Amino acid sequence: MVEITRRSALAGAAVALAAAPVTSASAAAPQAGAQAPGFYRYKVGDIEMTTVNDGVSAMPIDDGFVRNVPKAEVNAFLESTFRAPNVYSGPYNPVLVNNGRQLALIDTGTGEAALSASKGLNGRLLMNLAAAGVDPASIDLVILSHYHGDHMNGLIRADNSLAFPNAEILVPDVEHKFWTDDGEMSRAASPRIEATFKNARRVLTADVRKRLRPYAWGEEIMPGVTAMSTPGHTPGHTSHVVSSGGQSLYLQADVTHAPFLFARNPGWHFMLDVDPVAAEATRRKVYDMLAADRMMVQGFHYPFPAAGHVEKTSTGYLEHIVQWSPVL
Amino acid sequence: MVEITRRSALAGAAVALAAAPVTSASAAAPQAGAQAPGFYRYKVGDIEMTTVNDGVSAMPIDDGFVRNVPKAEVNAFLESTFRAPNVYSGPYNPVLVNNGRQLALIDTGTGEAALSASKGLNGRLLMNLAAAGVDPASIDLVILSHYHGDHMNGLIRADNSLAFPNAEILVPDVEHKFWTDDGEMSRAASPRIEATFKNARRVLTADVRKRLRPYAWGEEIMPGVTAMSTPGHTPGHTSHVVSSGGQSLYLQADVTHAPFLFARNPGWHFMLDVDPVAAEATRRKVYDMLAADRMMVQGFHYPFPAAGHVEKTSTGYLEHIVQWSPVL
Repeated sequence: MVEITRRSALAGAAVALAAAPVTSASAAAPQAGAQAPGFYRYKVGDIEMTTVNDGVSAMPIDDGFVRNVPKAEVNAFLESTFRAPNVYSGPYNPVLVNNGRQLALIDTGTGEAALSASKGLNGRLLMNLAAAGVDPASIDLVILSHYHGDHMNGLIRADNSLAFPNAEILVPDVEHKFWTDDGEMSRAASPRIEATFKNARRVLTADVRKRLRPYAWGEEIMPGVTAMSTPGHTPGHTSHVVSSGGQSLYLQADVTHAPFLFARNPGWHFMLDVDPVAAEATRRKVYDMLAADRMMVQGFHYPFPAAGHVEKTSTGYLEHIVQWSPVL
Repeated sequence: MVEITRRSALAGAAVALAAAPVTSASAAAPQAGAQAPGFYRYKVGDIEMTTVNDGVSAMPIDDGFVRNVPKAEVNAFLESTFRAPNVYSGPYNPVLVNNGRQLALIDTGTGEAALSASKGLNGRLLMNLAAAGVDPASIDLVILSHYHGDHMNGLIRADNSLAFPNAEILVPDVEHKFWTDDGEMSRAASPRIEATFKNARRVLTADVRKRLRPYAWGEEIMPGVTAMSTPGHTPGHTSHVVSSGGQSLYLQADVTHAPFLFARNPGWHFMLDVDPVAAEATRRKVYDMLAADRMMVQGFHYPFPAAGHVEKTSTGYLEHIVQWSPVL
């Protein structure tokens, strides 16, 4: 009987290879070297949801990455989840909502220009939409949750043209007012926040502005999709509840950024939270509700396919990602 | 500010719809109604791995499903993982191993005939191989872990022809000897085990038998892939260690059946374990090693994409499935 440890397995492998090299009569198929398409469908009542992955980030973790926790503690926590330290690899997951009458895209990813800049790590939304058979021109509505670049940059292509040429662009009114206000920009609390103001102005081209329609918290912005007030991450940060046929789903956008950090540690303050105290209060309120109601949730920075449930634990909230289903 | 509870969200939605029905000028794209292809690639050193999903089961949970735990307790545990009770939905995940010289398929799923019988829930391996661009005729080796139907039935197509016509079929020698022994069959401990003997005889057609090559525990059966002794689930149940370039992966087959049941509760005895006491001993030994070494593991019944790591907890082992990566 072979001892089942890795060390003996490797030693055993070396011995076996020396004793009896394996040969093949047929040529091997080539390695593919590319990932499968990154989309996933499921139903909420009669509404068809499609998570469309835009890729992942590769952000260095420094002492400011979590404002109130030192880098060493963040690294230790990442390792406890079997992730590499020092670099934050966070997923980006826009989502399609098809209610049978309208096709909406909620958030747009890092944008086509990011694809080469990131060496293919992100900026993949248009590729994955194509893999899912979705023509960008068939999208009726683009709905933004907030004005951070990874959510809005995909509104425009690398040549600054409209990525979704026939879509009305629905934006939270509070969010739009804040990031387009010159007075607010002049009072930006940090260079990072000032850069967000400038980026919003870059992405809100004349063509984009022509198609904008601000929406209010509490408004049903398409049949089955209602805007929910979840400020803190940004002043107008908005979540969406999808409801159909007695089922419902909470699209939490960035109520937590990556759940494997900020749901499990709801008191951690992410560097991109404009008001981290308000963000934490919103997070605890939403997550207490999600856990108590066992409500299905999807998050922009959740691991693909980005839908699941959350359990309240003694220290925070643990995400349970849905099991891949071969049928809808 | 909108109250963020599901009840008020639904009430608010009804009010908003009554107040301002949303209309669209453009026709919606049709709902797709089908899932994305179920395959996922990653590297172990220079070896390219591809998980190819065969679908999921839908098995009723009765008091014998876990031999030593009543149905009510199994149901309560499933609900704690946000899974539905009464029906066990367990994934099937064969895996391709391409070492650049040979392309091997480890385990074959429930078989093409299962596709219609299960109404598309399983029997999807050939479809997902096609989606991954893999011609069944290009597979050099089929490697079986053991002789349960969900691992071996895919050797033959619905018309009983060879599914992988050019492949040598590598089978664990202990396993083959047991399930093809008429004396062992005459002593089968239950109708379920007797049915496994008969199914093996059905699948081991003359064409299959011509291509069989038994292998031994400890043998490197293709460069980079070594057979590991993990008996209990069946007498010849075999795992495989994949090693390349200083990286390694433990393909655990059914050391635990579904990890969300049997890794988290290693003392639970699955109804299909031929020797549940030996299976538990193997499981604890392998999982203690996987947790201590933080070794990457893939399981046939792990949630797709079926690769991850395991953490030792106070009550068992918790699986952490890998985060989907858009690049290899």
